[in-house]
Amino acid sequence: MEDLIAALPDGRVLTDPDVTESYARDRTFVPPGRPLGVVLAESRDEVVTTMRWATEHRVPVVPRGAGTGLAGGATATDGCLILSLARMTRIRELSPQDEIAVAEPGVITADLDRAAREHGLMYAPDPSSYEVSTIGGNLATNAGGLRCVKYGVTRDSTLGLEVVLADGRIINTGRRTVKGVTGYDLTGLFVGSEGTLGVITAATLRLRRAPAELATVAAEFTSLRDAASAVSAIIAAGCNPSLLELMDRTTLEAIDEWKNIGLEPGTRAMLIAQSEGSADQMAKLCEAASFVAVSSSPEEADELIGLRRLAYQAKERLGQCLVEDVCVPRSVLPDMISTIEDVAARHGVKIATVAHAGDGNTHPVFIFERGLAEPPPEVWAAADEVFRAALALGGTLTGEHGVGVIKRRWLGLETGPVVTEIHQGIKQVFDPLNILNPGKAI
Amino acid sequence: MEDLIAALPDGRVLTDPDVTESYARDRTFVPPGRPLGVVLAESRDEVVTTMRWATEHRVPVVPRGAGTGLAGGATATDGCLILSLARMTRIRELSPQDEIAVAEPGVITADLDRAAREHGLMYAPDPSSYEVSTIGGNLATNAGGLRCVKYGVTRDSTLGLEVVLADGRIINTGRRTVKGVTGYDLTGLFVGSEGTLGVITAATLRLRRAPAELATVAAEFTSLRDAASAVSAIIAAGCNPSLLELMDRTTLEAIDEWKNIGLEPGTRAMLIAQSEGSADQMAKLCEAASFVAVSSSPEEADELIGLRRLAYQAKERLGQCLVEDVCVPRSVLPDMISTIEDVAARHGVKIATVAHAGDGNTHPVFIFERGLAEPPPEVWAAADEVFRAALALGGTLTGEHGVGVIKRRWLGLETGPVVTEIHQGIKQVFDPLNILNPGKAI
Repeated sequence: MEDLIAALPDGRVLTDPDVTESYARDRTFVPPGRPLGVVLAESRDEVVTTMRWATEHRVPVVPRGAGTGLAGGATATDGCLILSLARMTRIRELSPQDEIAVAEPGVITADLDRAAREHGLMYAPDPSSYEVSTIGGNLATNAGGLRCVKYGVTRDSTLGLEVVLADGRIINTGRRTVKGVTGYDLTGLFVGSEGTLGVITAATLRLRRAPAELATVAAEFTSLRDAASAVSAIIAAGCNPSLLELMDRTTLEAIDEWKNIGLEPGTRAMLIAQSEGSADQMAKLCEAASFVAVSSSPEEADELIGLRRLAYQAKERLGQCLVEDVCVPRSVLPDMISTIEDVAARHGVKIATVAHAGDGNTHPVFIFERGLAEPPPEVWAAADEVFRAALALGGTLTGEHGVGVIKRRWLGLETGPVVTEIHQGIKQVFDPLNILNPGKAI
Repeated sequence: MEDLIAALPDGRVLTDPDVTESYARDRTFVPPGRPLGVVLAESRDEVVTTMRWATEHRVPVVPRGAGTGLAGGATATDGCLILSLARMTRIRELSPQDEIAVAEPGVITADLDRAAREHGLMYAPDPSSYEVSTIGGNLATNAGGLRCVKYGVTRDSTLGLEVVLADGRIINTGRRTVKGVTGYDLTGLFVGSEGTLGVITAATLRLRRAPAELATVAAEFTSLRDAASAVSAIIAAGCNPSLLELMDRTTLEAIDEWKNIGLEPGTRAMLIAQSEGSADQMAKLCEAASFVAVSSSPEEADELIGLRRLAYQAKERLGQCLVEDVCVPRSVLPDMISTIEDVAARHGVKIATVAHAGDGNTHPVFIFERGLAEPPPEVWAAADEVFRAALALGGTLTGEHGVGVIKRRWLGLETGPVVTEIHQGIKQVFDPLNILNPGKAI
């Protein structure tokens, strides 16, 4: 460690265990190991220095943004070095003409969005955590969000990357153009690789024209399945929503207890939908709703969507959370929702569900007692059933949170042994010493 | 070869050199080698049989669709086996609810689009060749097209793949859902890999809602640079065109000679633009035009766009063609266009340019004498300058055609030595015996 401390500017390396501990976790219960130290990198060259040192000394490196991950991907392991990119906060370039930005990994997602808005543009991907999460973390997990239903996920907005490899070499992948097919798609490969293939030190990101006017629908339902069916109907009718979110009763109660939203006793679910132009057709397709309101006020919309973004924090007030992330084809969303309700009842587990419903991406949050080191057996049993049901419905284990450590146990069910072998082979190409976030993602 | 003939159903293997020769080329001048034979595979299992045999006997395999490639990617090499997927033409599934189709590689691109239209949907990627090119070829090159400016390229429409590996093992990558982050993005890696990593035997493709009404603008300019500047203005104003094409005088003359379109003597360039709803703002931004017409008639639009799609065939009437494919950031399209004009003049080379201008993707077509085995030195010199200019402008060597064999000479200029090493490492993971389309793409 002395070599590393000497090689970097003063103040970049933290080794006091009381301090480093606060960098060792993400937002999950996953118990961290004890790191050797934390590097607070401020530039690409400091990342290079760090990775060269790590390669020389065979020290595992856990890259990290804001630590808002929900799969354990940024959890420290014993004897690792934590490499925080949170101080690399420069937006190196923002070109309104070409509708691109070049951002460093520590830029807060919403800050990039705000910078783009000054030019009538937006950065579309918006995970619920986007006021605190970083571009680097979003790239690591290929983060989704509320606007993905129309604009796609982080990978869809990523044109090129600057990456420091495990041995400290620098590569540039991709391009600044909207199209390009030179060589294999390394950009897409790094996005979603959860820090196991390289350390991203800058990303060329696509911006999009910000929509001028959005109409918002809020609809309450006395049955969760009815709400899910309305989602399927809205998609099937081709309404092209720019946001389509679902919250179940347990979620609404958690928000109500905290923010007092005046939840009606019979309400079992709420849908929030948004689209450019008129939202009348979507409102009409919520025919089973007990209450429907359409608004074109941006303030009302922000308030409503703000409540949705608080859902996870509201649930954390109820206990510890295992936040899950299954995604199914949109036509079978009602079946997935029914299965989750059924699993909760049979296992006696409290599950609060929110969904990026327009994507078929459901977040069942399994709530368990505070103080427990990890979820109790009935929660794992319930989660196992939910995962298997999602796969049986043609879905996937994780729509946007990543595999991290939490879902590695189930990974083989989705990918199979040959793909597992290919994953390991690719990992070996980029990181032959296995020092980049070992034990995660694959 | 006897083993292979015995292992496959009757009629699947062609060995007569007079017959196999017609499968040995793509649409380029690249001189083919002499193949051992051609397999006309009709199913995934026949592909498996073929690849097992190729692995056992260390025979290079050149996968092939309709042979409309423009980079030499499907050119036969001496002693190779050509594996045609053109007979695998089943659309295995088309789900209007989930807006996906599962198509085999031999499906003609426009046929898939037509099948989707029956449900109010479309398959968006539409290379100019889409009435004859196949989904498999489109996937191999990550093909673009006219509608990409709004809907993205082939990779953006690909959710999952069924792939036969070099040794005959089968994997499924990706998903049926619109989101998913389980494991590395192998789907994106196979798309655009030009048959060097595996043989795609089915693809789960995203369909999109077909637009209800499109308005079309046609504008003529007395200067090519003015037309390119109008493109930049249209993009910068956020018009969100669903098509934005540019043709230069040489292209228009070639079409005029063939189809007699009544080309005005002073016209140096034509823009065709389309958007949902109104096209008035785009028409207004063509302020430097000598003639502008706006139409909402689908028949007129089809006729106009049909002429654009004929551009390449029209140029083939003038001589042999080296069709290039540089893509630059959209703000510098006028500079790229001026450079191409300047290079043509200085080298005394006839270059006819069309562009998917809304993407900054330019196709300068270098026309040279029929009968020559390959482009003469001045054509290569001119092309070299165009490639280097595109890179200097922040662009890429190939927007949508792929590297094939033609652009391998320049590849290192764009990717650099470390990326080249990574490409080779990835190739080794998938194809350790180097039997899949060796000598292409990377």
